[in-house]
Amino acid sequence: MNDKKVVGEKAVEYVKDGMVVGLGTGSTVFYTITKLGKLVEEGLSIKGIPTSNQTEKLAKEVGIPLVTFNEIEQIDFAIDGADEVDDDFNLIKGGGGALLREKIIAKAAKSFVVIADPHKRVNKLGSFPLPVEVVPFGYEMTMKHIQNLGCSPLLRQNNGIPFLTDNGNYIFDCNFPIIDQPDELEKNLNLIPGVVENGLFVGMADKVITLNKEKSIIINGRL
Amino acid sequence: MNDKKVVGEKAVEYVKDGMVVGLGTGSTVFYTITKLGKLVEEGLSIKGIPTSNQTEKLAKEVGIPLVTFNEIEQIDFAIDGADEVDDDFNLIKGGGGALLREKIIAKAAKSFVVIADPHKRVNKLGSFPLPVEVVPFGYEMTMKHIQNLGCSPLLRQNNGIPFLTDNGNYIFDCNFPIIDQPDELEKNLNLIPGVVENGLFVGMADKVITLNKEKSIIINGRL
Repeated sequence: MNDKKVVGEKAVEYVKDGMVVGLGTGSTVFYTITKLGKLVEEGLSIKGIPTSNQTEKLAKEVGIPLVTFNEIEQIDFAIDGADEVDDDFNLIKGGGGALLREKIIAKAAKSFVVIADPHKRVNKLGSFPLPVEVVPFGYEMTMKHIQNLGCSPLLRQNNGIPFLTDNGNYIFDCNFPIIDQPDELEKNLNLIPGVVENGLFVGMADKVITLNKEKSIIINGRL
Repeated sequence: MNDKKVVGEKAVEYVKDGMVVGLGTGSTVFYTITKLGKLVEEGLSIKGIPTSNQTEKLAKEVGIPLVTFNEIEQIDFAIDGADEVDDDFNLIKGGGGALLREKIIAKAAKSFVVIADPHKRVNKLGSFPLPVEVVPFGYEMTMKHIQNLGCSPLLRQNNGIPFLTDNGNYIFDCNFPIIDQPDELEKNLNLIPGVVENGLFVGMADKVITLNKEKSIIINGRL
């Protein structure tokens, strides 16, 4: 069984009957959602709230009943992957382009669990380029302001045209040297007019499920 | 001559040949743009960059040549109105719904001048409800987070359906009691996932043109 499948399926153990569950996006959560679908088939009663159009499609295919924000009072539990996880459980997310919705759902959840195959673990964030979502209007200017924070931003493209998020925005993938103060950087990025959100998730993860060198599951966290 | 016209037309005196000029939105800047149109007709050579579709339309009508961000290196000068101006030249903007583009342009401009009829002047910000632009996805949750900062947010509507900004987002008009620390509030609002931008312009205005009680023009500022 591959690493992503092991940690992805482990996460479903936290899902209980009656929960509203935030469903992340990506290749690791794929296994969580697929497994949840099987459990629903066997009688588990949950409601899912997807972080992307892609996840919405997958959840429907595997038979997880979905809700929208106006039907619920709160999210009990959210599961998502990450592109990097540091020793303080801070994350870089957004490689898949769904960072904004993922962050909205992670913040709304009473508990947020991150699943990460071992090569996502780092001491300090920054090897993975930080995704920053910006409005298309004036993105050339916004890029300069981001650059002034000490990175090289690269406009994400698909076949030569700018990649569009589910919210109709652009993404800059930003190569910072090591990110020493993710909380400061998160704040400074979000203060730039034109920046909608950035992929730093600081102090949000309650638990991280990953594997050690011997491929045993390890679970760290605040819960 | 009405107050808005007096301050609106005064602002054009700062516009020089060859400048790239950020054009604000609203009932006071209307007079600036109209006057600039006349000066262009008489030979002034400028390029305008509009903060809203509404301003773009007006500028075209009065004959101001327009540019987009990808055609320019910088904005020399931006002119805009405000809903409130405090004693430190901090602003509340966004009553017209164009706060995001206005803020992008104000930040990009080498010099930013605000025109305000006298009743916009306050000691402390907060009588005017602060506009906060949010993405439609999860706006119910985003509202709760905004509320937790100490205000009553009201979703702006048009004939019973949510008002949409030029960027396709929603606006909450947020009744705070007096805003004592606009810089802190600006930061905390922008850290909420789902908040795209807020109408606080802290430390951005270089000059404020308004009228005193005797209806004489007064110009205050850092320039």
